[in-house]
Amino acid sequence: MSLTEPVHGQTALRAANRRRVLDLLRGSSERHPVVAPGAPSGPDDTGFTQAEMARISGLAPATVSSIVKDLAGSGLVEVSAGGGRRGSTVRLAAGAGHLVAVDFGHSHLAVAVGDAAGRPLAEARRPMPPAHPHQQALAEARTMLDELLESVAPAPLLGATLGLPAPITDDVVGSAAIFPGWEGVNAREVGEAALGVAAVVENDANLGALAEQRVGAASGSSSCVVVKISSGVGAGIVLDGHIWRGATGSAGELGHLTLDEQGPLCRCGSRGCLEAYASVTAVRALMAEQLPDADIAHIVEAARAGSVAARRAFEDAGLHLGWGLAGIATLVNPDVLVIGGDLARAGDLVLEPARTGLRRHAIDAVAGTPVLASSLGGRASLLGGLLLAAESTDLLALEG
Amino acid sequence: MSLTEPVHGQTALRAANRRRVLDLLRGSSERHPVVAPGAPSGPDDTGFTQAEMARISGLAPATVSSIVKDLAGSGLVEVSAGGGRRGSTVRLAAGAGHLVAVDFGHSHLAVAVGDAAGRPLAEARRPMPPAHPHQQALAEARTMLDELLESVAPAPLLGATLGLPAPITDDVVGSAAIFPGWEGVNAREVGEAALGVAAVVENDANLGALAEQRVGAASGSSSCVVVKISSGVGAGIVLDGHIWRGATGSAGELGHLTLDEQGPLCRCGSRGCLEAYASVTAVRALMAEQLPDADIAHIVEAARAGSVAARRAFEDAGLHLGWGLAGIATLVNPDVLVIGGDLARAGDLVLEPARTGLRRHAIDAVAGTPVLASSLGGRASLLGGLLLAAESTDLLALEG
Repeated sequence: MSLTEPVHGQTALRAANRRRVLDLLRGSSERHPVVAPGAPSGPDDTGFTQAEMARISGLAPATVSSIVKDLAGSGLVEVSAGGGRRGSTVRLAAGAGHLVAVDFGHSHLAVAVGDAAGRPLAEARRPMPPAHPHQQALAEARTMLDELLESVAPAPLLGATLGLPAPITDDVVGSAAIFPGWEGVNAREVGEAALGVAAVVENDANLGALAEQRVGAASGSSSCVVVKISSGVGAGIVLDGHIWRGATGSAGELGHLTLDEQGPLCRCGSRGCLEAYASVTAVRALMAEQLPDADIAHIVEAARAGSVAARRAFEDAGLHLGWGLAGIATLVNPDVLVIGGDLARAGDLVLEPARTGLRRHAIDAVAGTPVLASSLGGRASLLGGLLLAAESTDLLALEG
Repeated sequence: MSLTEPVHGQTALRAANRRRVLDLLRGSSERHPVVAPGAPSGPDDTGFTQAEMARISGLAPATVSSIVKDLAGSGLVEVSAGGGRRGSTVRLAAGAGHLVAVDFGHSHLAVAVGDAAGRPLAEARRPMPPAHPHQQALAEARTMLDELLESVAPAPLLGATLGLPAPITDDVVGSAAIFPGWEGVNAREVGEAALGVAAVVENDANLGALAEQRVGAASGSSSCVVVKISSGVGAGIVLDGHIWRGATGSAGELGHLTLDEQGPLCRCGSRGCLEAYASVTAVRALMAEQLPDADIAHIVEAARAGSVAARRAFEDAGLHLGWGLAGIATLVNPDVLVIGGDLARAGDLVLEPARTGLRRHAIDAVAGTPVLASSLGGRASLLGGLLLAAESTDLLALEG
């Protein structure tokens, strides 16, 4: 998928018409807030008659009729025999099918089942051993999915999103060093085989950014960059409501922005990368003598209890983060910057100096770009997976 | 305009249908190469019948008919009575109207007249005194336009693009320090009044990037960043074939990426900005003792004649430029990076070290992003203006 879809050629036009019908039906439902897992949710729109759909969209009645027939056959819409003068109406069949999201992590695995509009119905999460083979993760995901499906009403699976913490090109996972166990694997193929449902594959940072923009800290904005800071630093970019992946799927590698060309050598081969100054690893290294083997939660505790060193460690990380945010703001100029990941647990201990760093390093016009804490936390990628699956269902249904 | 146009609401749908019809008609014609000014050009497509347009687009015949009637009334399409079985056909009326582009510069003014597909027919350029009032530039532009129109066949003016070297928000020019004489001016209003034609307003770097991506060094790519290096450094960003302006029109401010937080104070208020190391000003400053008052052409000459100092000055500028390009590649990941502006006259004296700097500072996945010299040079913004006017004619005609 691309940010914009040039409408040339008959196949592209048919797909665009189909998408237009789905967008029309989705209309209000995609703007519902995220509800807690298990909370009841369903479409509250009353649907459109096919005549209304043709009039509003400008499509020929025969085109609308043919698309509605297709979509009804795929279980994506339901046509209800209308009483009275209005005639039968068409609506998105939120209850008629489920979407699936799987978030494959280095040390966790999370699975969610949602309705056709991408709202979560049930979720599960469990830890995974480091460097586990992908077969193990897929088998676990299948088990978790089967368990989740027992907790929701029976319905066909419409599609899935598989989120992975790695660059992905044509569904194939790259860079062994980044996500061992998955190098060179066609994640879509193995995922569809394991889960038994058509899937799209996406980088987890991109999914997190999509979720924050639609239903999280950046909702109300049309463009945002969501920075995830844990042992490494990555960013997902959403521009005009759509994920921007970059020409080769490598956009948003904020952790490897060079801050000091004479700085420490990085795992990427460059020197003085932002990761060396603004990451969980960097903060722990600064505190290695005072609080050996402390994790971030302990260092946050120490800072809140008055440790000047701990406060300074977060401040230094935040100032460098702000320098990187200034790079994003100066080059990309999003509406909002959102900070997530383990380091975000430090809250304003990191966010305040990050805002200072942004102001120091950015041109005036963007120096005040809001820097917000993630509101979805560790669920962001999973929720983004459901939202992307909802957007992709028309494509998935075409293939499946 | 936004990168993507969500199709909600009837007005948006009508505009989308209109755009779809124009895209269909524009089809092949927008992919013609740029021809030399004055060279004959015209549509070589044979057009579509309205029945074909309805079938291909999926729009209702009545919708197509109503849009074609509107467009014909605006002079944008022509309906030719067809001989034989095919019936009358509709085509883009390239010969039936002209587009205008004006490139307002600090020390130049350029005007072009093009056909309805955005291909240039006639161009003129003249120097302007520094810090001239905008009224003077507009009056000159009107005179130049009138002269150019004498050299082309008579036809109605369909629309114009006004390019300005400044950030623009809602048609209003910002930042007095950046483009004196225009601060706070609604450029669209004064431009339309002076030229007598509906206009869109756009930053000149964005227009240059659009032209390089469509018909210049980056043609064949779908995303590119075009960096213009003269006394300052700015960049235009094209993603998936569309200009990315940023949330507040400030995207692409590469000149103000911080390379050294302890570096020299910049006019922007920050320190160690890229401009201080990679710009015409920086190269001239490095050569101030050896070649006082030399312009870039002289320093290039000296370097080519063997001056080690001059070669080193370009190399240092290029390495720092490459550092900035690595920031773009790492965060935005475009297909291609294009270098224009006065410093680009140094050719490989700057581009080779820029590629080295990119490789040194970027993650491996993007370190080989092609770094190309602009192929349109000083004409880029003007040609981009015609292309943007062609894309905007449907909107302009709606308003005009």
